[in-house]
Amino acid sequence: MALISSDGEVVAAGVFTKNKIKAAPVILCSEHLQDNRASAIIVNSGNANACTGQNGMDNARATADLVARELGLKPDEVLVASTGVIGAQLDMDKIGGAIPGLAETLAPDGIANAVEAMMTTDSFPKISQYEGKAEGKPFRILGIAKGAGMIMPDMATMLCFIMTDIRIDPSDLKEALSSANEDSFNRISVDGDTSTNDTVLILANGMAGNNALDTADYYEFVKGLKTVMSDLARMIVRDGEGATKLVDVKVKGAATAADALTAARAVANSSLVKTAFYGQDPNWGRIIAALGRSDIRMEEETVDIWIDDVKIVKAGLGCGINPEKRAAERMTAGEFDLTIDLGQGEYEDQVTTCDLTHEYVSINADYRT
Amino acid sequence: MALISSDGEVVAAGVFTKNKIKAAPVILCSEHLQDNRASAIIVNSGNANACTGQNGMDNARATADLVARELGLKPDEVLVASTGVIGAQLDMDKIGGAIPGLAETLAPDGIANAVEAMMTTDSFPKISQYEGKAEGKPFRILGIAKGAGMIMPDMATMLCFIMTDIRIDPSDLKEALSSANEDSFNRISVDGDTSTNDTVLILANGMAGNNALDTADYYEFVKGLKTVMSDLARMIVRDGEGATKLVDVKVKGAATAADALTAARAVANSSLVKTAFYGQDPNWGRIIAALGRSDIRMEEETVDIWIDDVKIVKAGLGCGINPEKRAAERMTAGEFDLTIDLGQGEYEDQVTTCDLTHEYVSINADYRT
Repeated sequence: MALISSDGEVVAAGVFTKNKIKAAPVILCSEHLQDNRASAIIVNSGNANACTGQNGMDNARATADLVARELGLKPDEVLVASTGVIGAQLDMDKIGGAIPGLAETLAPDGIANAVEAMMTTDSFPKISQYEGKAEGKPFRILGIAKGAGMIMPDMATMLCFIMTDIRIDPSDLKEALSSANEDSFNRISVDGDTSTNDTVLILANGMAGNNALDTADYYEFVKGLKTVMSDLARMIVRDGEGATKLVDVKVKGAATAADALTAARAVANSSLVKTAFYGQDPNWGRIIAALGRSDIRMEEETVDIWIDDVKIVKAGLGCGINPEKRAAERMTAGEFDLTIDLGQGEYEDQVTTCDLTHEYVSINADYRT
Repeated sequence: MALISSDGEVVAAGVFTKNKIKAAPVILCSEHLQDNRASAIIVNSGNANACTGQNGMDNARATADLVARELGLKPDEVLVASTGVIGAQLDMDKIGGAIPGLAETLAPDGIANAVEAMMTTDSFPKISQYEGKAEGKPFRILGIAKGAGMIMPDMATMLCFIMTDIRIDPSDLKEALSSANEDSFNRISVDGDTSTNDTVLILANGMAGNNALDTADYYEFVKGLKTVMSDLARMIVRDGEGATKLVDVKVKGAATAADALTAARAVANSSLVKTAFYGQDPNWGRIIAALGRSDIRMEEETVDIWIDDVKIVKAGLGCGINPEKRAAERMTAGEFDLTIDLGQGEYEDQVTTCDLTHEYVSINADYRT
């Protein structure tokens, strides 16, 4: 478990899983954020508190109450996040027993400990920060995340908590978070499955001392937020279950913005494409077949495809064995770009994904116990 | 390569991949079936003749011409099907050289040889037959298929050829084929990727001697066709790449017919659900999460889930460890049912799928050469 707490006049916002099945802590956070105020986050791993019914909601509420009592807050100032196995009830004795100790050891430099506590089986801690200026005054954004690198099955939930000292209007904070989320966490995919617990929370305590943000300062803040969140999102893919490759699937020349994203997602989620990444095989037939089954406007004759800067498909036809060999060579690296030009228009988008490996199957075929 | 030829006044129909990228033989078949007539099918494996441009179309046409000349047919009476690697041109010397021998060895009892020739790396031949009566006269339906069990990557194309001696009106044949296809091949999934070459062709030569079909006879024929095609479809899943389990994902209680199918497909295509099948883990959290991210009407509180007849979820909550143990025991079998009652309405549907295994990754990560 980890506990995060912020002093000051804290403005808070969150974005949550779009899965219709929402875990109890996700429902509770939405409730507690209705007034855009919160100053503490309590997180547990090992149990998602999802599909746990009224009992699960009661336990999430009780957790917030315990933290509130310990920190002298109102219960609705506490946000709760859980990750782990779906369908099991929380052990409230364990949680209740741990909270006083967590509150006692709260420290300004404790963030490294919080990340350690959250990461359980992630293979590396995920921290990112940004420093900017608003009204000439320095502000900071600090983000931490866990996810996707879980060895224990069913733990692939993505959690991200962001702290900033900027002073910001609640509606601006919400808008900034949604916008940055759209360009970061909504542009990654490990296996196309959406968790019941995905949560991004942000606390802004205003201690940077700036006044209301003007447009330029607001965009400077959004830029910082996107930087931090994209950074964390890429770390999650790099640490994806069993992943050995991080691939930026870049689509350009799409007829519409929706087509660009649909195309990138179809390729990034194709099991056949992802096993080809693993095999370091520039298997463009699978890429073009994935594009063809997606619901986009396209013509075979206008498709070009590159691995990094090596063109392997021109006007829908393969460029031959030598470019493919050079592309295969590029794919031996841990990170590379797959770029697709649909030749249909001016829109582009990108999705960051990973390969599908033996280790992915091993991790997810293990029995939960 | 294999060659199928039918005597008599042959009525023909086909259904093809919905992928926007269609292989040359798929485009040629659509052309040749415009008059609902065809009496020969030539098939090659090893090369899909997809993404091959004008050259590929010319080669498909040349293949049909060669067969037509050999059998004394018009070129548009010949259908062509290919399966194999995408993006390489056919070796027309090889194909031209083989056709005379194929024509020479055509034999009434040669179907077993044709299946053998088609199956290349399938692990078993896929044949199914049905005998019915129309106007009191016996008719037969014989279907053969290849697919999904390919060891060589990119060969997962599904091809199915059906021969029947019933006498049937072309528009009835088309309708019967579409209807049977909807309930058979459109209800299976190995990995959610749609090939550029998927093809089902039917030849009806009228030799059963019945007159025009009345409604009851027509439905008897459709029933037979569904039986044969469902049979072959299930064989393809059983022989799916690396598959060790065949699972019928049955959804009932859906609010709409579309919801029932969407729900069944979301579960049947989830990598996390399919690895759990492999692990023999009744991991209902993954099932309910897959339902939740699909675009259907649902409420957590009305979902029930069974493995065979063992209920593991009631009203959205787990039934406990003993039912899960019994369910895990059922999952050690090579085939089982996963039944989901959404509790939202009267609609149901089902999709047959397989597990996602280490072997699937091995097969598809191997380099093409």
